[in-house]
Amino acid sequence: MILITNDDGINAPGLRKLHEAVSEIDHTIVVAPETEQSAVGHAITLSQPLKIREVKENGKLFGYAVNGTPADCVKIALTTILSDSPILTVSGINHGSNLGSCVIYSGTVSAATEAAVMGIPAIAISLSTWEEADFTAAGSFAKRFIPQILSKGLPSGIALNINVPAIPEQEIRGVVWTRQSKTRVIETFDKRIDPRNNSYFWMAGEIEWDDSEDGTDSTAVNNGYVSITPIHHDLTHYKALNDLRNWKIEFG
Amino acid sequence: MILITNDDGINAPGLRKLHEAVSEIDHTIVVAPETEQSAVGHAITLSQPLKIREVKENGKLFGYAVNGTPADCVKIALTTILSDSPILTVSGINHGSNLGSCVIYSGTVSAATEAAVMGIPAIAISLSTWEEADFTAAGSFAKRFIPQILSKGLPSGIALNINVPAIPEQEIRGVVWTRQSKTRVIETFDKRIDPRNNSYFWMAGEIEWDDSEDGTDSTAVNNGYVSITPIHHDLTHYKALNDLRNWKIEFG
Repeated sequence: MILITNDDGINAPGLRKLHEAVSEIDHTIVVAPETEQSAVGHAITLSQPLKIREVKENGKLFGYAVNGTPADCVKIALTTILSDSPILTVSGINHGSNLGSCVIYSGTVSAATEAAVMGIPAIAISLSTWEEADFTAAGSFAKRFIPQILSKGLPSGIALNINVPAIPEQEIRGVVWTRQSKTRVIETFDKRIDPRNNSYFWMAGEIEWDDSEDGTDSTAVNNGYVSITPIHHDLTHYKALNDLRNWKIEFG
Repeated sequence: MILITNDDGINAPGLRKLHEAVSEIDHTIVVAPETEQSAVGHAITLSQPLKIREVKENGKLFGYAVNGTPADCVKIALTTILSDSPILTVSGINHGSNLGSCVIYSGTVSAATEAAVMGIPAIAISLSTWEEADFTAAGSFAKRFIPQILSKGLPSGIALNINVPAIPEQEIRGVVWTRQSKTRVIETFDKRIDPRNNSYFWMAGEIEWDDSEDGTDSTAVNNGYVSITPIHHDLTHYKALNDLRNWKIEFG
């Protein structure tokens, strides 16, 4: 059985396309947020209880909607909803890329990282557009790639962050393994005044692409390739650790 | 000027102790969440506007409360509230450790990572107890260590994740540079029934300590040392990337 989740919510078209693709490979269970949860990062819900709503389609069980974050969905699925462990967790298909530094804000990717921490192989799939989305090529890639993961296995604790360019399948130039780029969002806050004369601020922002280096996720996608980055939850910067050991700090 | 933030909220005793320590080093500005934001991870607020409330104490500006996450606070501080860049961002002192895999859920740590992504040197400080907290030793460590950071500088894009054991300063055995351990929380969901006979679930959990390896954050803290882990926002697993390059994936 394959667990499907996302951060755009259980009714998102990207999840439906993913469900269609994965259903041709194995039995599926969807456990996804009740509502859109974009940019929640790896948030988990401690101060509110969670509710689980069974969702049927055409008289058959489609999955469960949870009033929480993507990481909540994975945790409650693996500990409470599912009686057996899934062979794979697939998160997506996200409407919008998850590239470079933006990955840290991604609910889609955090669902996959969460599953990997809990010992389940996991992938996140995102379509690189915020415009009108055609998930056909990304769904087709999932259908092609997932059986390969199932037969080869993934290293323990590793999740794959997959980004598919928003172009027709026949224009995609191939698939490359990549590292995370320095692509990031440059935020601005748009100031408004409410009817009672209080100011409030909307976060807005533009992507600052880092295409300066070969071998990165954003360079791959911008050149028409599917990008796959193996990721994990260890934030340690090992080179800095080695360099900083020379600092002597007296305390205690 | 040093920017202070946290995830326990602007009124948390840990932030007050940190403010007291940092005020002896440089001019400070606090920009912190209006309410407790524990376990929000690297969430940012896109679907709601943010409000900024000026907070005065004894007639003097103490800082700003923001109705958002720690990452929101850092973003709005650096882009909108502050006219100059701070020389350092300090997040904490968190009530509770941020060790091992638990770091990915931490609002305290994500505030520091966010500042580092935006080019500002940053540290997160946590006190390793969920019981009644005495922040004296952690505050004293901040006062001792921050001038050293200011004089030596940090490598670009790196934040420091500092955990202080919850013991008196004179019992602390020293300071060690560490890597992130595999310590994690094993979640359970506690099922309850509401008055209308609907079930709901509270996330609970116990820490599964990983003290099997030397050189990690949790081993250090459990042995009475202050742990400092240099962290970054690049989730790429470079060894897996190298190994996985052998997979041939045809697509497009």
